[in-house]
Amino acid sequence: MMRYKDRPENYKEMRLSPYKKEFQYSYVLGLFPVIELIDNLPEAIFRIVTSSKLSDSGRAVLAEKAKEAGIAISTDDRTIERLSPKENTFAVGVFRKFEGNIDPAKDHVVLVDPADKGNLGNIVRTSVAFNFSQIVMIGRSADFFDPHTVRASMGAVFHVSPLFFRSFDEYAAAAGSRTYYPFMLKGSPMESERPDISAPCSLIFGNESSGLDDSFLNVGKPLRITHGSGVDSLNLTVAAGIGMHWFSHAKNIF
Amino acid sequence: MMRYKDRPENYKEMRLSPYKKEFQYSYVLGLFPVIELIDNLPEAIFRIVTSSKLSDSGRAVLAEKAKEAGIAISTDDRTIERLSPKENTFAVGVFRKFEGNIDPAKDHVVLVDPADKGNLGNIVRTSVAFNFSQIVMIGRSADFFDPHTVRASMGAVFHVSPLFFRSFDEYAAAAGSRTYYPFMLKGSPMESERPDISAPCSLIFGNESSGLDDSFLNVGKPLRITHGSGVDSLNLTVAAGIGMHWFSHAKNIF
Repeated sequence: MMRYKDRPENYKEMRLSPYKKEFQYSYVLGLFPVIELIDNLPEAIFRIVTSSKLSDSGRAVLAEKAKEAGIAISTDDRTIERLSPKENTFAVGVFRKFEGNIDPAKDHVVLVDPADKGNLGNIVRTSVAFNFSQIVMIGRSADFFDPHTVRASMGAVFHVSPLFFRSFDEYAAAAGSRTYYPFMLKGSPMESERPDISAPCSLIFGNESSGLDDSFLNVGKPLRITHGSGVDSLNLTVAAGIGMHWFSHAKNIF
Repeated sequence: MMRYKDRPENYKEMRLSPYKKEFQYSYVLGLFPVIELIDNLPEAIFRIVTSSKLSDSGRAVLAEKAKEAGIAISTDDRTIERLSPKENTFAVGVFRKFEGNIDPAKDHVVLVDPADKGNLGNIVRTSVAFNFSQIVMIGRSADFFDPHTVRASMGAVFHVSPLFFRSFDEYAAAAGSRTYYPFMLKGSPMESERPDISAPCSLIFGNESSGLDDSFLNVGKPLRITHGSGVDSLNLTVAAGIGMHWFSHAKNIF
């Protein structure tokens, strides 16, 4: 079960301002992602605004879904323009922020201080592709609910349980007995390892610039993705994708 | 050997304007990437502009490298501001665009209509990490030389031979006998395949939105990266990274 932030008291008629991190709610932009949200987390969404340019067929689909879920739809071009000034957006969904419950029996993707919203959204998309549903963010993470993150995830943020911890120790205390795989340049070659299939596992990735600090050398089994010397490191989303692919296929999930 | 575009006639004193795709030259922004360019492709770079805020030690390193390569350095804050208005840039290198020569004996990364500069730069970075030096761009590619692409590549664009073709057929006519691996959702599972080690190979990736069209089902051995049904597809840079990692490690390059 997901835990949701409260709706604002005047949620039906309040003026919608451009997104800020301190809001209890956020926006999903575009007809397809709005429908994805209604289908996956209907309790989260509490208002839908459409553009007068939305096609009749798009409006019909949206109206039916919203009715089933008991969500109000209004048409308001000025609000759309205010929330999405640069894009050709025809529908905006307003949704309560949410947080999952940690499941010690599942595999986790753990991100320590991920800084870039595009990277974070992309990693969530990859996580869903490789059947990870628990996404742990530790420390000063980019905003999981920012409309840029939501967009980069292609709606995948609505398919996972986001989990937020202040420190790795706080996370480890809640995560249960498991095998940790920190990805770092000082680790041993991932390509020579088989993932532990006797316990749940955590794949841990560090910040874009600084990676994971040396304290992670003492956490579980540090791994590196072997590559040539032409570049210092792989891009974070690429490294996370390669790590998740290795893990899910070695575990024969598919 | 690389083939270079001509320098502008008045290259020593011409006013430098914000980058446009039709220029014969482009810009690399930042002290570290400028030094990377001098070290790797000294014939390409023909002018260096620095900010008055550049540190004395940075200026000393740059001056020595530029002197060896016979390149003029000037200090000009207004030009820096014009070329890089949003960033805190202390050095800009002006370089001639270049094109490599196709090598039929090497493995190639082939990108069909890649649309996003950030993705293109990132894929070039990953290509260098996995020892691909021939990057083929086919059709309406994002601009390989745009400063955004150069930045996303972390300077890796200066480590590869870029090759440009109007169509796949034109490329295939020049590429020599080889095994083609188009990555597409209708391919067979990559994870069950071993790359051909008896011939040079090409890994082929399509556009971010449309992928590769069905005509590629008749080209070589189409492959898909197996993933769950939670998302329609992987992000292009992630898919390219997983494909290159599979290939280079199965070939035991490292």
